Amino acid sequence: MTARPSLIVHGGAGELSEGDDPEGVRQLAGCSTAARAGFEVLRRGGGALDAAVVAVRCLEDDPLFNAGTGSTLTVDGEVECDASLMSGDGRAGAVGCVRTVRNPIELARRVMERTPHVFLVAGGAEEFAVECGIEKLPPGALVTAAMREKWRMAVAQRSASRSGGTVGCVARDAGGQVAAATSTGGMLLKRRGRVGDSAVIGVGTYADDLAGAASCTGAGEAFIKALAAKSAVEAMRSGAAPDEAAQRVLALVRRFGGDGGLICVDAAGRVGFGFDTARMARAWIDADELEGSGFKAA
Amino acid sequence: MTARPSLIVHGGAGELSEGDDPEGVRQLAGCSTAARAGFEVLRRGGGALDAAVVAVRCLEDDPLFNAGTGSTLTVDGEVECDASLMSGDGRAGAVGCVRTVRNPIELARRVMERTPHVFLVAGGAEEFAVECGIEKLPPGALVTAAMREKWRMAVAQRSASRSGGTVGCVARDAGGQVAAATSTGGMLLKRRGRVGDSAVIGVGTYADDLAGAASCTGAGEAFIKALAAKSAVEAMRSGAAPDEAAQRVLALVRRFGGDGGLICVDAAGRVGFGFDTARMARAWIDADELEGSGFKAA
Repeated sequence: MTARPSLIVHGGAGELSEGDDPEGVRQLAGCSTAARAGFEVLRRGGGALDAAVVAVRCLEDDPLFNAGTGSTLTVDGEVECDASLMSGDGRAGAVGCVRTVRNPIELARRVMERTPHVFLVAGGAEEFAVECGIEKLPPGALVTAAMREKWRMAVAQRSASRSGGTVGCVARDAGGQVAAATSTGGMLLKRRGRVGDSAVIGVGTYADDLAGAASCTGAGEAFIKALAAKSAVEAMRSGAAPDEAAQRVLALVRRFGGDGGLICVDAAGRVGFGFDTARMARAWIDADELEGSGFKAA
Repeated sequence: MTARPSLIVHGGAGELSEGDDPEGVRQLAGCSTAARAGFEVLRRGGGALDAAVVAVRCLEDDPLFNAGTGSTLTVDGEVECDASLMSGDGRAGAVGCVRTVRNPIELARRVMERTPHVFLVAGGAEEFAVECGIEKLPPGALVTAAMREKWRMAVAQRSASRSGGTVGCVARDAGGQVAAATSTGGMLLKRRGRVGDSAVIGVGTYADDLAGAASCTGAGEAFIKALAAKSAVEAMRSGAAPDEAAQRVLALVRRFGGDGGLICVDAAGRVGFGFDTARMARAWIDADELEGSGFKAA
């Protein structure tokens, strides 16, 4: 079977604030670059999981996004990253509270491929990274000057605005398989040891070749109660188009008092998204190889 | 509204092995004791969450069960506990890879009550326990002689049999609210840093006052793919009796190549369970205050 590949990425749902317009332009460019890098994998016949990892790596390496380099800081002023991925054949991997790894999404993939487990956290996950030959970064390596300044202000004001900025990608490859990948630095001023909802299989990330894949961005109990990513995939399984599936999940999340956004691809390769925050940078390349992107609501 | 309270506990799904019959008798007694302790809370007008925590504490403190004292050991020979709970009003808390806390379920509750987060792990979770005034145990405090011996044999044979033994409780109180709580030492010979599926909200634990609550026991991707606890609650929402909901989830889990067990209570206070392993110790007190228990299949 040869399907036409497609892919969509997001750079996190959040609120608008001063300076967001120029940042929005840069985030759009970052998302488009990531989407093209992922799509290039698909165009060459690569798998959906490879494509999703490549795209999320791009976003992790871009200091504009709250994942990998440029992640938000904990109340102690450190970076602690969460990431998860799932292949539509049911394999999954996730890491939480990882401080010493440049690309947490790559480590999540190693957990999936090289352990009998799904989820490794903190020191144990960092040890595993070393065993895998992944470079161990010194403390502070992922902290950007801009994020340090934001952290200083938040500490001074004792208020943690919602940081947004989780990144993710969902893709379908030419073999008809789907995958989802999500990575985040989590909430600004979070406690040490806090694992975010976005990087939990079923909540932030889910994929099933027979239905589709989803990657979510949003904070709090509402996404957990809604089992957001799984719910989006179930909506597609029951026939909803990806945009419609996203809207249904957002309605469910709102009922539970939350907001955020998500991206979806269905088993037929249609891509879609939805968000009910003021912004969610996203970029996609659909099965007709048409590119699209956006920052605020249409 | 005054409802008749009810509650069911489980001591983990697993295989039968030599010596299991006397152990089964002891596990049954342990489950009955925990069920009665939890039910006493309900009888006095206490909440479902309080009752579930009391019952799970009992099982954590009983060295027969793989949770708290008597937990299985990691490949490094240490105890690392996971626990999660959810109240039917949507509040949830979870901890992972906690080594220094006697009752991980109590710590999960503190996460729910005293932080804006849902999930804390490893050192950060242990720090939080100290802030809450919870006694910090010395290394090895939760290791029993029997488990050390089991670990030695497993290391010698380089094989980790499925350890089973996750514990859980679901309850409905006189106010009609439901709750679920789950606690586990995880897999024997697991890697340091491994968080088990059983203690993830939606997979191992889920509760919704409008539908019911579930606590699962079983290993592997199959429970994750099935989002087992959430699926059980959704089955009850759509009208399935608790036993039937459990069977539907097990069928789903089998399709994904796994096995295990779960306990359920629906919004009407009916309790039920299911397992497709050889054994799952369980005990319940239903809305008519009738007690029941079992170890192997009926």
